[in-house]
Amino acid sequence: MSILVVGSIALDTVETPFGEVKDVLGGSASYFSLAASLFTDVKVVAVVGEDFPQEYIGLLASKGVELGGFDRVPGKTFRWHGRYGYDLGDPDTLGTFLNVFEKFNPVIPENYRETDYVFLANIDPQLQMSVLKQVKKPKLVACDTMNYWIENKPMELKEVLKHVNILIVNDSEIRALAKEPKMLKAARTVLDMGPGILIVKRGEYGALMFSKDGIFWAPSYPLEEIVDPTGAGDTFAGGFMGYVSSQDSVDPVELKKGVVYGSVVASFTVEDFSVKKLATLKREEISTRFQAFLKLSNFD
Amino acid sequence: MSILVVGSIALDTVETPFGEVKDVLGGSASYFSLAASLFTDVKVVAVVGEDFPQEYIGLLASKGVELGGFDRVPGKTFRWHGRYGYDLGDPDTLGTFLNVFEKFNPVIPENYRETDYVFLANIDPQLQMSVLKQVKKPKLVACDTMNYWIENKPMELKEVLKHVNILIVNDSEIRALAKEPKMLKAARTVLDMGPGILIVKRGEYGALMFSKDGIFWAPSYPLEEIVDPTGAGDTFAGGFMGYVSSQDSVDPVELKKGVVYGSVVASFTVEDFSVKKLATLKREEISTRFQAFLKLSNFD
Repeated sequence: MSILVVGSIALDTVETPFGEVKDVLGGSASYFSLAASLFTDVKVVAVVGEDFPQEYIGLLASKGVELGGFDRVPGKTFRWHGRYGYDLGDPDTLGTFLNVFEKFNPVIPENYRETDYVFLANIDPQLQMSVLKQVKKPKLVACDTMNYWIENKPMELKEVLKHVNILIVNDSEIRALAKEPKMLKAARTVLDMGPGILIVKRGEYGALMFSKDGIFWAPSYPLEEIVDPTGAGDTFAGGFMGYVSSQDSVDPVELKKGVVYGSVVASFTVEDFSVKKLATLKREEISTRFQAFLKLSNFD
Repeated sequence: MSILVVGSIALDTVETPFGEVKDVLGGSASYFSLAASLFTDVKVVAVVGEDFPQEYIGLLASKGVELGGFDRVPGKTFRWHGRYGYDLGDPDTLGTFLNVFEKFNPVIPENYRETDYVFLANIDPQLQMSVLKQVKKPKLVACDTMNYWIENKPMELKEVLKHVNILIVNDSEIRALAKEPKMLKAARTVLDMGPGILIVKRGEYGALMFSKDGIFWAPSYPLEEIVDPTGAGDTFAGGFMGYVSSQDSVDPVELKKGVVYGSVVASFTVEDFSVKKLATLKREEISTRFQAFLKLSNFD
């Protein structure tokens, strides 16, 4: 099976108390694609500017990511500049320069429209809806969003939620979307909006999956080293969707395993800046850590 | 088996956006005792003033808590006044009135000194050390502490840590004690200070146990209702120690089950103000939720 992802490609400048990188590969579609490509074929639809380094295209291509919907247009690539504090919690955004991403209007290539697994990364809900209208009967559609869209395009976002199977967001986003601080009530409210499955990413505290089958909790292994949390959420989504698509099954057990795989791959991403760790990650490393994650909540 | 606990008994005034209570039973020894009494016999050493309501003594006694070390002295009972925000996170302390607790000098009754399981709740490390000198070869000693002692009596606290088997603290305390923001490194640093086992309480995110046997993660069930988080940590310790003492075993599997039982009992405490829920909690309710907690991280 394969996955279609529509999202952003960015050049990030990231500062932490432990180091700094400038204009490195970032954006939701980058992290998602590299993570998912560890499990399955990935087709990406995104836009970059003339300044986008060829080496990053080479990196994506070397992982088998299909770039038929990767548009290079006149102008500069989307840039984000963030700074993390000592606790590596939520970063301060020092600059967001949408550049060519401002006029992003995703056109799904004809031969991508029948992809069975679709991920709508965090972009304008109206663009997410436009993608949904272009694809043909996917088996599973998941989407992400952010507080900005929850506040500024609530109606458009709710329309999208009626048409997706899975919503993947974080703690604060689910509470904002449901206007409810209590997780369980918030989850019920959001499930009533349309998606049959809700996954809440909680960083070092793991992830929760809510569905009619109940609640599943995936732990997160305490890490030796956390260098840069950027992209952890998109990596999680990529690992999750990549695994599920590779099994071509939405059986509850496979979805649960997918949540653990998502957590596992995300735990590697944060061990280095940008996609550095993802770029060299081996399937054996994933399998080893998958077992370690499972062992965390085992009694023997 | 039975447990000896030395800690505070308080009258709490608690405000939340959802309600308020005045001068209700609080303090580490209260929550701990009521939680542990669900599993085993508990002996408590604490001090209260002349104003301490007889009904609370009746409540503890009705649960089989032995009050031979429960000292009632001239003056007023320790009082704490806190206010929680909308997210029910860390409360603002509006007032702390130590009253008779200021001169608390725990004297362990002769017939309590051979208790096999000992819990030193969050009190001055010098008092914790004094208790350790009075008890005779306990099988297992656990202790709690807080940022105040970590900052103000670091040497005394480190002396205590050399003599306890288990340290039970929260996320911020472990990081402060180790002077290290990364959990895994912080845990290693603290294990090097003496205790063979470290348990980190993380509220709605569960609990982590570190030891030479590895890391165990107990999930926490997303709750229908959270009314008042006060006492969750001491309840956790009571449930944990109560279960372990009831099994009279420090086998890793029993310790892991203890961590889950601690989380389970704490999840009930926060469903109502003060010890209201603990006071009426049934063993069957605990068993049912224990199973639900385990199911959270199961694949089938």
